[in-house]
Amino acid sequence: MSQRPFNFSAGPAVLPESVLRTAAAEMLDWHGSGMGVMEMSHRGKEFQSIHAQALATVRELLQVPSEFHILFMQGGGLGENAIVPLNLSGGGAVDVVVTGAWSQKSLKEAGRYAQARVAASGEAGGFRDIPDPRNWQLRTEAAYVHLCSNETIHGVEFHTLPDLRALGCDAPLVIDCSSHILSRAIDWSRVGLAFAGAQKNIGPAGVTLVFVREDLLDRALPLCPSAFNYRTVADNGSMFNTPPTYGIYIAGLVFDWIRDQGGVAEMERRAIEKAGLLYAALDGSGGFYRNEVAAPARSRMNIPFFLADPALNETFLAGAKERGLLQLKGHKSVGGMRASLYNAMPLDGVRALVDYLQDFAHRHG
Amino acid sequence: MSQRPFNFSAGPAVLPESVLRTAAAEMLDWHGSGMGVMEMSHRGKEFQSIHAQALATVRELLQVPSEFHILFMQGGGLGENAIVPLNLSGGGAVDVVVTGAWSQKSLKEAGRYAQARVAASGEAGGFRDIPDPRNWQLRTEAAYVHLCSNETIHGVEFHTLPDLRALGCDAPLVIDCSSHILSRAIDWSRVGLAFAGAQKNIGPAGVTLVFVREDLLDRALPLCPSAFNYRTVADNGSMFNTPPTYGIYIAGLVFDWIRDQGGVAEMERRAIEKAGLLYAALDGSGGFYRNEVAAPARSRMNIPFFLADPALNETFLAGAKERGLLQLKGHKSVGGMRASLYNAMPLDGVRALVDYLQDFAHRHG
Repeated sequence: MSQRPFNFSAGPAVLPESVLRTAAAEMLDWHGSGMGVMEMSHRGKEFQSIHAQALATVRELLQVPSEFHILFMQGGGLGENAIVPLNLSGGGAVDVVVTGAWSQKSLKEAGRYAQARVAASGEAGGFRDIPDPRNWQLRTEAAYVHLCSNETIHGVEFHTLPDLRALGCDAPLVIDCSSHILSRAIDWSRVGLAFAGAQKNIGPAGVTLVFVREDLLDRALPLCPSAFNYRTVADNGSMFNTPPTYGIYIAGLVFDWIRDQGGVAEMERRAIEKAGLLYAALDGSGGFYRNEVAAPARSRMNIPFFLADPALNETFLAGAKERGLLQLKGHKSVGGMRASLYNAMPLDGVRALVDYLQDFAHRHG
Repeated sequence: MSQRPFNFSAGPAVLPESVLRTAAAEMLDWHGSGMGVMEMSHRGKEFQSIHAQALATVRELLQVPSEFHILFMQGGGLGENAIVPLNLSGGGAVDVVVTGAWSQKSLKEAGRYAQARVAASGEAGGFRDIPDPRNWQLRTEAAYVHLCSNETIHGVEFHTLPDLRALGCDAPLVIDCSSHILSRAIDWSRVGLAFAGAQKNIGPAGVTLVFVREDLLDRALPLCPSAFNYRTVADNGSMFNTPPTYGIYIAGLVFDWIRDQGGVAEMERRAIEKAGLLYAALDGSGGFYRNEVAAPARSRMNIPFFLADPALNETFLAGAKERGLLQLKGHKSVGGMRASLYNAMPLDGVRALVDYLQDFAHRHG
């Protein structure tokens, strides 16, 4: 088979080719069981082994301490925007750091369950930077502080998680790390709960990973649905309800692939290289293209950019598709273009994009 | 490839072999798009066409009237046990007909949001029959009446849905039809809402189908999470949050397969034939095997049965596995055996099971 096109979708997104090949080969018969993974009872020993292996590998990859439970849930990031306050807020105060569209959504949904307040916001600056943590307005009574550690739409990433205790705040930090999970280490000493919809940097939509510290399991509001109660899900090993079995299997294959490639440190090395190439091409285009995010807050995973002449947008996209560079259109709320450089995006894909950027600018500049 | 084993799992469960072959063949490249289905943006035209086609086909197969919305959600039947009362109860009265383990669970979860009460129960009789609707205790103020139209664990099926109006009740009927959806027609004139976790008679775990009548969309309690609010999900075409795209794709392939086989009427004809064969073998075994459900309430989909001598259970299961008859162990709460004869179970599988039943009884009787 010839080379696959390069898929820059923000999610659902590209998967490693070897993962897809394994999934195709095992579709009718997983490891001689006579069943495909989609056909297995979640209670049977075959799927139990798939589940246990996925959990063990992601725990190892992210060095997750033993006091954190790892749950496979459903409902994605938008589901967690309700599930987190249902479980953690106690109906009290929740402080939200707003750095883009995703934390805005989290703020709005949390406000339905708790006294949610903006601790800091990058909105006035067009979400092009991260407000300095020393200026965050954190309440001593906050049940938790929420932030989105990588904003998929605005392309803003926390390269260091804040140390809330050093800021005088004892509340647990909740991070939505959907779109950069497994591209860098997580400093668990600074986190109480992390969640990630899998459809961005892991692969299959319909699986949500939740990493929750043991002491936060028992704070749910009475009206929290049982299927979304962290204690219930944890006590049942993510099998209170039937889990999204096939998605967990694919996630497990992705975890194995990351480990075999050299782990999260290697993913981070590649992410720095790939993002560096693309930002250099944008910044070096003499204004033909621009990314507007302040350098220290630029995301390695999601890189929105704009053509100086928006009238060329459709031509740009059509030409990209001809070269096998897919799904580069920006989110409708911001326009322009966006390249998502998740773990599964090979360096060759970024090189091909950079070549195209330069060629297109040369022809139309 | 030689014949696949026959998989009698209650769910996740067997899928049509041709569906699995299509999924494997399209894993790296769906219809020349250069992307696998798992890698596609849910907003792109490729996945939009997959989604629209799946919706249209299931609407045609089940003759769903236009006043019903069809939603693809997440969280399964146990999720819906909270999502339904969050959307429909208004915190008021909910009447539940209890015919087995699944409606018991629904009753318990509804009680967290509403004044849920048992309208009728088969528990005293060991869930071996369906209480006569003429004796149901229905409240005039009920926001809805809930029943499970096929109890997966106890093997009890409603072969006719009750006509609540004829019983003097104006409340909408909610049915959990997870384990027999698409094996028979649904009389929509008697139903306000139907839901089904897909992992039983459709295939992929992590997708829940919800059929909800237009007039029931706007009754949600204020604390209903946005991602699980029927109005929000309907207004966004099941794309308020990222839907479980791959599961929807597989469900669509299963819908196509049902249509190509002759539709729901043909599925029902086969179900009657398959279940008839198995019940006849059990009933004709001279007491070696027994199914305890009253004949008019026997499920065509899930057939629990017991060996007269439970000491033979392990021998029975081991011998079955040797013959390629998989996942026959009964649910842990009732013991014994269970054969699930979903749409994707071929007649040959039931014949092979019946042969084994007779052979085993002959050798051990």
